[in-house]
Amino acid sequence: MTKASGAKSDRPLVGILTGSPNDLPLVEKARETLEELGVPCEIKTLSAHRTPEMTVEYVRSAEANGVKVFIACAGMANHLAGTVAAHTLLPVIGVPLASGALSGFDSLLSTVQMPPGVPVATVAVDGARNAAYLAAQILALADSRIREALERARAEAKRVYE
Amino acid sequence: MTKASGAKSDRPLVGILTGSPNDLPLVEKARETLEELGVPCEIKTLSAHRTPEMTVEYVRSAEANGVKVFIACAGMANHLAGTVAAHTLLPVIGVPLASGALSGFDSLLSTVQMPPGVPVATVAVDGARNAAYLAAQILALADSRIREALERARAEAKRVYE
Amino acid sequence: MTKASGAKSDRPLVGILTGSPNDLPLVEKARETLEELGVPCEIKTLSAHRTPEMTVEYVRSAEANGVKVFIACAGMANHLAGTVAAHTLLPVIGVPLASGALSGFDSLLSTVQMPPGVPVATVAVDGARNAAYLAAQILALADSRIREALERARAEAKRVYE
Amino acid sequence: MTKASGAKSDRPLVGILTGSPNDLPLVEKARETLEELGVPCEIKTLSAHRTPEMTVEYVRSAEANGVKVFIACAGMANHLAGTVAAHTLLPVIGVPLASGALSGFDSLLSTVQMPPGVPVATVAVDGARNAAYLAAQILALADSRIREALERARAEAKRVYE
Amino acid sequence: MTKASGAKSDRPLVGILTGSPNDLPLVEKARETLEELGVPCEIKTLSAHRTPEMTVEYVRSAEANGVKVFIACAGMANHLAGTVAAHTLLPVIGVPLASGALSGFDSLLSTVQMPPGVPVATVAVDGARNAAYLAAQILALADSRIREALERARAEAKRVYE
Amino acid sequence: MTKASGAKSDRPLVGILTGSPNDLPLVEKARETLEELGVPCEIKTLSAHRTPEMTVEYVRSAEANGVKVFIACAGMANHLAGTVAAHTLLPVIGVPLASGALSGFDSLLSTVQMPPGVPVATVAVDGARNAAYLAAQILALADSRIREALERARAEAKRVYE
Amino acid sequence: MTKASGAKSDRPLVGILTGSPNDLPLVEKARETLEELGVPCEIKTLSAHRTPEMTVEYVRSAEANGVKVFIACAGMANHLAGTVAAHTLLPVIGVPLASGALSGFDSLLSTVQMPPGVPVATVAVDGARNAAYLAAQILALADSRIREALERARAEAKRVYE
Amino acid sequence: MTKASGAKSDRPLVGILTGSPNDLPLVEKARETLEELGVPCEIKTLSAHRTPEMTVEYVRSAEANGVKVFIACAGMANHLAGTVAAHTLLPVIGVPLASGALSGFDSLLSTVQMPPGVPVATVAVDGARNAAYLAAQILALADSRIREALERARAEAKRVYE
Repeated sequence: MTKASGAKSDRPLVGILTGSPNDLPLVEKARETLEELGVPCEIKTLSAHRTPEMTVEYVRSAEANGVKVFIACAGMANHLAGTVAAHTLLPVIGVPLASGALSGFDSLLSTVQMPPGVPVATVAVDGARNAAYLAAQILALADSRIREALERARAEAKRVYE
Repeated sequence: MTKASGAKSDRPLVGILTGSPNDLPLVEKARETLEELGVPCEIKTLSAHRTPEMTVEYVRSAEANGVKVFIACAGMANHLAGTVAAHTLLPVIGVPLASGALSGFDSLLSTVQMPPGVPVATVAVDGARNAAYLAAQILALADSRIREALERARAEAKRVYE
Repeated sequence: MTKASGAKSDRPLVGILTGSPNDLPLVEKARETLEELGVPCEIKTLSAHRTPEMTVEYVRSAEANGVKVFIACAGMANHLAGTVAAHTLLPVIGVPLASGALSGFDSLLSTVQMPPGVPVATVAVDGARNAAYLAAQILALADSRIREALERARAEAKRVYE
Repeated sequence: MTKASGAKSDRPLVGILTGSPNDLPLVEKARETLEELGVPCEIKTLSAHRTPEMTVEYVRSAEANGVKVFIACAGMANHLAGTVAAHTLLPVIGVPLASGALSGFDSLLSTVQMPPGVPVATVAVDGARNAAYLAAQILALADSRIREALERARAEAKRVYE
Repeated sequence: MTKASGAKSDRPLVGILTGSPNDLPLVEKARETLEELGVPCEIKTLSAHRTPEMTVEYVRSAEANGVKVFIACAGMANHLAGTVAAHTLLPVIGVPLASGALSGFDSLLSTVQMPPGVPVATVAVDGARNAAYLAAQILALADSRIREALERARAEAKRVYE
Repeated sequence: MTKASGAKSDRPLVGILTGSPNDLPLVEKARETLEELGVPCEIKTLSAHRTPEMTVEYVRSAEANGVKVFIACAGMANHLAGTVAAHTLLPVIGVPLASGALSGFDSLLSTVQMPPGVPVATVAVDGARNAAYLAAQILALADSRIREALERARAEAKRVYE
Repeated sequence: MTKASGAKSDRPLVGILTGSPNDLPLVEKARETLEELGVPCEIKTLSAHRTPEMTVEYVRSAEANGVKVFIACAGMANHLAGTVAAHTLLPVIGVPLASGALSGFDSLLSTVQMPPGVPVATVAVDGARNAAYLAAQILALADSRIREALERARAEAKRVYE
Repeated sequence: MTKASGAKSDRPLVGILTGSPNDLPLVEKARETLEELGVPCEIKTLSAHRTPEMTVEYVRSAEANGVKVFIACAGMANHLAGTVAAHTLLPVIGVPLASGALSGFDSLLSTVQMPPGVPVATVAVDGARNAAYLAAQILALADSRIREALERARAEAKRVYE
């Protein structure tokens, strides 16, 4: 039972995409945070430009397999989040990365300035941790254990200030 | 029955906050879009700076009354979305507005650059419509009628291109 | 004969994509310029985000039908040029448009800051005319009539200064 | 006597808030400068987003305890200064910090671009020292010893150039 | 008596400097706000670059005549606030103006980025009204009537939201 | 035969100009990429400002010697690409470099914002590799071996993601 | 005699170049100001990109004919000032123009960020009048009548403030 | 004789001001360059904000002692060049410095965006060397030896490219 539900809970609810293997260390922070919050997730290294079909296929199969929220992390002209958003109606969170010469201004603007109908929920430059919190907040609407984990995390964040 | 469920469906699921009465015309686009998608919502004019307590009270009472997602729209130093996010664990969507001399750069950066633990899901400058789509995508995770409305909206958006 | 070759010359060598019907007046300048230079072209209104499959299909069919260069025009987070570039090895010219609150800075950075392997040849914000000149310069490498048209155009451009 | 007045002078006139423990080394420069000018102060690590109630409580109790000026230091989306300003009518000085990828542009704009009625007296990015000078200038209006300390400090600053 | 004290209260406590006659309409908002708050003030059109000596003389004579706070408003390279701050130890509030091609970014950066020892309390671009509120907050530390006027103004600002 | 065609293939098809010897390490990446794609090229260190005549002479002689595409790399106010474009009708690719204090924003804007009639195909800041890919894409229109090399390169780029 | 010296004084000392006929109204302000200061000048419409040879020829012939200072005005990627500076050792003043979508940021950076050895004396965006004053200041080093005209102009500028 | 003229030539023709002792290493490059060109100069560390009177006195005495051109170097809100320009009619060259968090954007805009009548000849961020070349170009109008030194320097600069 516990096992079965454990197995079930192992099925990722959040699919994290990262545009380049170089960005994995930063992207790992999203995974860490999701795991702290008890949200199963998976990371895929996929590029909107180098592997567009694989990206689209992943989005479709992930949705079929139970992923509920996507997080897409990329630097420079971040088209990864927008590409994911164009192929799903699930919420897509975009994380601009500060790789490259322009300190993430390029990635921020190319992530957030989406046209009507295809939103990307953008967080701060290099904000992988906050992308995880946002995904958890979305999932917590239907899962009281995630809600409780978020409450604990917020309470803990306050403790630093006491 | 239908009436009762209708009455129930009238209870807002999305709470839209706008920092200034001047911004209402733009903010109305979020309401329009949510109504097209069958998502009940309400608009409150509240300021993080001029009415901080009222803002916090609204966030708490709205959450108690069944609001599931907040949308906060403000120009210049947009602290409204951050203030809402500091007082709830529900997803908060921030809409930077281009009022003021700096074309919305100020509002974009003050909306999106949130610290770890308190994310704001930021959309494009003046992107009220996309805030509504994003809210609907979040709610659609647990409501197949909203999902269907989103599917119809996306199909319709394609029709312009045919 | 003349007719046949005329018919042949009517087959577009340049495929112009524009992300929104609103941008057509500016995009028409690319067509005008290409026509002045004797380069057959076609304009398609297609969105990387709203019609991603149609965009990919168009890129493939256009390449099969003899298009040699693409021009992609879009405002805000311009992912159109990058999407085209991800699905072809033909040269892709990107035209950032100044629609939206941020005066085209968003579109410029999201067009030009492409990752290694998938270049977009970016021209100035709203630079539809220059996209046409650049497409003609590329085609002129194998077509002396286009080269001559470019020479005439440049000579004429000097005349304003005499 | 001396003791009593010493005790009195130990009651802080300036309340310095810093949004994160990481910023303390820079914020210490404000304390150092205030101490050089003979202005008693205290530093509190408080976050507009993680500890909003504690922040508001501190502002109220500090004002009740005799604080006359607040200095709020924070990076990224600096909402700390604005939150303080929303809960007091005392002068609030904002110090944008250059933490994060965007070099302090985000913090500068989110500190300074306040709406009418709720001003934040903003100093340079990382300008903790100048925040202290400004606080002392404000207090010097009613305290000739602080005024004299400012005069000595300015005279000394000239000496470097002689 | 009343008259004398009335005459005294007419002596300006705030000296407003504006760099160009063109900016007077915007600068008038500072005067209006100060008058609403019962703070006597005067406006002088003076330029750091065209009338540097007159500017310095005004600062000195104003201080001698009882001015307690300066407000300096200028567009483009705003050196007016810095020049005033260099010649007084009274608090100086800088208002960047959005005149010129660069939308006030130039004026904001040249107002706020002052070196240690010579602070300028900077408010938002075109923020003349907030400069007045800030001046009143500073003066209210020693004048309970101004404090009460500020309380009334803040209460009134909330009424718009009720 | 092989020798003759070999000799012929050694004649550079791409002329790479770099504005300063300091930039050679980055510019070498363009050469490496072109060599990987089988495109002969040459690098010339030439300055639009220090050696304007030599630059113009090189452009003319290179075109006479069979160069088909130019790549111009320069930092700060990058006038090199524009100068080349003013003296040829061949396609000119501009690579903005991030040397200098302003992180390449200066070079990007001075490369891409060309007036009508004189386009520069701009790639990302420090995007030397993409300039090479773009040059190869242009040359591949008339050379199936380069096309095949591009196909291999793109396939290989995907392999990283498998 | 007077006539002869008059004829001589008609020989332009300042050569004003403008990159486009559209910019003439703004550029005329430079001429007006120079005429007010008694400095003979001429305006040439010449483009660094469309008429590079004519530009170089003009610079050479103007220098031979007695021009002592150049003023170059252009929008977008302003290469005109740099091109002039590359072909003369006379002082070159650059005026960035705010034409185009990017409000003159592009022109400012492409005018001012010149590499060592080839300076351009840059004035404010759209600062044609100041370019004229700067040219007159340079010429006044050897011409006391221009010096006196500058003194009169500065005195008059003060009168507005009296 | 030679001695006398040597003594005379030792009297500085260029007065270099730097706003902070920290900037001396960069500012020394201006002196080095001027010495290479045979132009006598002096460096003064003076602040527009900390030592305004000393700055004005230096400008006046320097002008009386034969200085013909000023170079003013400062970071952050660079008011030094503007202050010098406000007190002289000699040409003033401004060098923005990249000290501080904002990479010199603040200093560039506060140096170059001067109002009509008071120009500052601005060079690139950290462009101390070019300030020296520009000063020499101005002085060369009346001094053929400086002109020859400039010709030699430009010829030498070309040699790097041969």
